[in-house]
Amino acid sequence: MNKDHAITLYDLILASGITLSPFVWRVKLAILHKGFKLNAVPTSYMQIKTILDGSHTRLPVIVDGETVVSDSLAIADYLDRAYPDRPSLFRSPGERNFALFLDGWMFQNVVRHWFSCYCLDQVHLSCPEDVEYIRESRERLFLQGRPMEEVVADREQRLMAVRPNLEPLRMLLKDTRWFAGDEPDHIDYLMLSHFLWCASLATFPPLARDDPLFDWINRGFDLFGGIGRDDRLHPLS
Amino acid sequence: MNKDHAITLYDLILASGITLSPFVWRVKLAILHKGFKLNAVPTSYMQIKTILDGSHTRLPVIVDGETVVSDSLAIADYLDRAYPDRPSLFRSPGERNFALFLDGWMFQNVVRHWFSCYCLDQVHLSCPEDVEYIRESRERLFLQGRPMEEVVADREQRLMAVRPNLEPLRMLLKDTRWFAGDEPDHIDYLMLSHFLWCASLATFPPLARDDPLFDWINRGFDLFGGIGRDDRLHPLS
Repeated sequence: MNKDHAITLYDLILASGITLSPFVWRVKLAILHKGFKLNAVPTSYMQIKTILDGSHTRLPVIVDGETVVSDSLAIADYLDRAYPDRPSLFRSPGERNFALFLDGWMFQNVVRHWFSCYCLDQVHLSCPEDVEYIRESRERLFLQGRPMEEVVADREQRLMAVRPNLEPLRMLLKDTRWFAGDEPDHIDYLMLSHFLWCASLATFPPLARDDPLFDWINRGFDLFGGIGRDDRLHPLS
Repeated sequence: MNKDHAITLYDLILASGITLSPFVWRVKLAILHKGFKLNAVPTSYMQIKTILDGSHTRLPVIVDGETVVSDSLAIADYLDRAYPDRPSLFRSPGERNFALFLDGWMFQNVVRHWFSCYCLDQVHLSCPEDVEYIRESRERLFLQGRPMEEVVADREQRLMAVRPNLEPLRMLLKDTRWFAGDEPDHIDYLMLSHFLWCASLATFPPLARDDPLFDWINRGFDLFGGIGRDDRLHPLS
């Protein structure tokens, strides 16, 4: 494989073309961390069934030569297994467990609250062919059938109330530059993916301007030529 | 240093002689993991001021040849730094961050609740010279001045209510043998130390008999010749 080796990633996007899915964001970061070129194929929810052999129902999916891999964690494992001589995504099994634990913690304590604040933004920002599906499926699966307009009504107060939940991350980042130590790896990408997802939707910012988390967020958004510095992303404060 | 090299550990004990402090438990496990002999010096709270040069106010403290180190995390870092050729306690900076995050999570979601259920056991089980200090300081610092008898009154119900808080640990341990992967390291010792602390006090068990966590707890308590298989420890279910 030469250094111009590109990996194709089916990217789940909003109407603007920016990536939505946190699971795709982390795979983008992973591919770039391994030093590959990224060949992103913009895909809407409705287009997923049209890609490759038509068997896929979720993204991300990558194609690397003859190899097709789906599921963001399986993709990270594949990249480390197939390319052990390139920078590791997980430097030990303990790091992989950290990433899984943090990811679950982040969904439980932060992301599910943010979702209930930004679900209507997703409807407004989605690709036209996705709008009806997004509204119907999200209200049914995640919002107990409540209309999104009702769910987001008091979001400014609820976003304020979520801020203290991030305190364990602020505490940890007082004494370490990245979650992975001196240099980022997939632990950081996985956490950054949640903030990138949030920035893709947040028409009202979730964080205070002086949140100490921005030291890490800003360094993360600057990675790989500024992956989080896209005009189509919304400010987080 | 030969293989019979022993490290002295000032051990914080209950009247039975069993270790109380989770910070001491994790250092015991760390010293054994590094392959050293453990020279534990039983110490009550009231005796702390009498050890070494009299400057210490907390345990654990270790003495390794000419070197004195206090604070459990500083001790783990010292052991890895001083003995890099012996098995690592933290296999990467990311693992060290995992340990710190999990430890904070465990205190916040589990240990502080357990403490409010077992504080009176600590008074009853403490070394005679510690009893008055333990009751007074704990009620003042951690229990808002409430008498312990009142705090523990409804503990059977509250212990039941804590069990679901452990679910993220059960989820993670479904797919990994240890928190550190295939073999335990300080991430596991740190978590085991909370269960060993609990077992030193729990005159009423905190967990259900069929808790899937026991697969990991039992393997952990069996380490180093059965460090958690001491008759002075209480059953956790």
